[in-house]
Amino acid sequence: MKISPKHPRFRSLETRERLVQGFQSGIVASQGLIAQGRGEAFDYMLGEVTPKSSRLATKAASALLLGAKSPVISINGNTAALVARDIVKLARSVPAELEVNLFHRSLARERRIASLLKRKGADRVLGVDSKTKIRIRGVASPRRSVDAQGIGNADVVLIPLEDGDRAEALRKAGKAVIAIDLNPMSRTSRAATVTIVDNIIRAIPELLRITEKMKPLSRSRLDAIASSFDNEKNLARAMQDMTHYMQGWT
Amino acid sequence: MKISPKHPRFRSLETRERLVQGFQSGIVASQGLIAQGRGEAFDYMLGEVTPKSSRLATKAASALLLGAKSPVISINGNTAALVARDIVKLARSVPAELEVNLFHRSLARERRIASLLKRKGADRVLGVDSKTKIRIRGVASPRRSVDAQGIGNADVVLIPLEDGDRAEALRKAGKAVIAIDLNPMSRTSRAATVTIVDNIIRAIPELLRITEKMKPLSRSRLDAIASSFDNEKNLARAMQDMTHYMQGWT
Repeated sequence: MKISPKHPRFRSLETRERLVQGFQSGIVASQGLIAQGRGEAFDYMLGEVTPKSSRLATKAASALLLGAKSPVISINGNTAALVARDIVKLARSVPAELEVNLFHRSLARERRIASLLKRKGADRVLGVDSKTKIRIRGVASPRRSVDAQGIGNADVVLIPLEDGDRAEALRKAGKAVIAIDLNPMSRTSRAATVTIVDNIIRAIPELLRITEKMKPLSRSRLDAIASSFDNEKNLARAMQDMTHYMQGWT
Repeated sequence: MKISPKHPRFRSLETRERLVQGFQSGIVASQGLIAQGRGEAFDYMLGEVTPKSSRLATKAASALLLGAKSPVISINGNTAALVARDIVKLARSVPAELEVNLFHRSLARERRIASLLKRKGADRVLGVDSKTKIRIRGVASPRRSVDAQGIGNADVVLIPLEDGDRAEALRKAGKAVIAIDLNPMSRTSRAATVTIVDNIIRAIPELLRITEKMKPLSRSRLDAIASSFDNEKNLARAMQDMTHYMQGWT
């Protein structure tokens, strides 16, 4: 459906259409459309702008990625449909590995996502060849399988739009986890080391920009930024941003 | 996908699966999956229970329906997928007409929804035969077409899960509008005469129960209940319920 740029909800509707197109081309799962809707609702309560709490988290996330030994960015259908180009740029900038990792897994969809990432400039995409997969404990879904060379070996994992089970399992496996999640109360948000409460269409470009800017910093400076970040406190700030927004309506 | 009843999000996940099944059987539009996600997020902020504000609105809604000359219940794909049986019971109880009215319109989907409603016990379903359609002003989408015998002629229209454009246009056309919408800030919620801020899977059974209970009331008593309801004030209450819930997390 063609959306008029005059529509009061144009930007949100346009993003939604991109998800539906991603669904039609086999990149996005039907459950991914529902997840998009949840994100829209929470974004609504941020006034659809990046809050200050998210900027703090982004800085800590960049510090973690740049200070990591083996950072990996996990990609699912929605992430690929919405921010493929910028996430490939981010992987190059850090540098980090890219791994396709789907909750509703299918080899055809994994391949389509990997090929999309390669069209957008990725050299290597892990997670598609099942021969290299190992299992992480505590995850019941097919997402327990991770690439031995990728998330299996990673010290820092960026998981945009992840489920709670997996986020918790990755933490238990001793990895630092960076989540991008619009729901500050979700299990993913609470389990992560650093949670960026923001819309992925704003969060990834911002993470790329900050990472580029922080690249010259020393290892000890990066460590200091990452370790001074308090995720629980920052999630409370994000919730305050949302409640203040809603209180503005009453 | 089979969901374990032990999963912490079982009820929400099960409802989501029903929507996906409705999508696979051609009842629900892909956009309807996204709408479900938005609802999930706002429901999360109600703690997934019916708030007191919603009970007040439900009482006013029953009074409006029972006091109406020609009440009509508008049905879209998500409503049919989630609460077909109870909405047919509600239509019988008032009694009210049922009209299929889709934002993302297709004759095939209209027919599938009408046939589902008939399987659940509906005698008559309006809105499928395009010969009887007229247009309402101020709506750009295909939803401007309404059945002349149904919404075209109605004094009270129940619109569960409606878009803002249509809710506003129905009000401008002089109709009393009852909305069921989990977002208390949406244009639909603000345009409606009575907005029930609640999940449709709880709201429709509750509306049915209250309607049955209020049936013996006199016309003047029903009028008094409906006219004493203040939608703006009640929406503010619903927002307070949500902000209090979120504040409980911080």
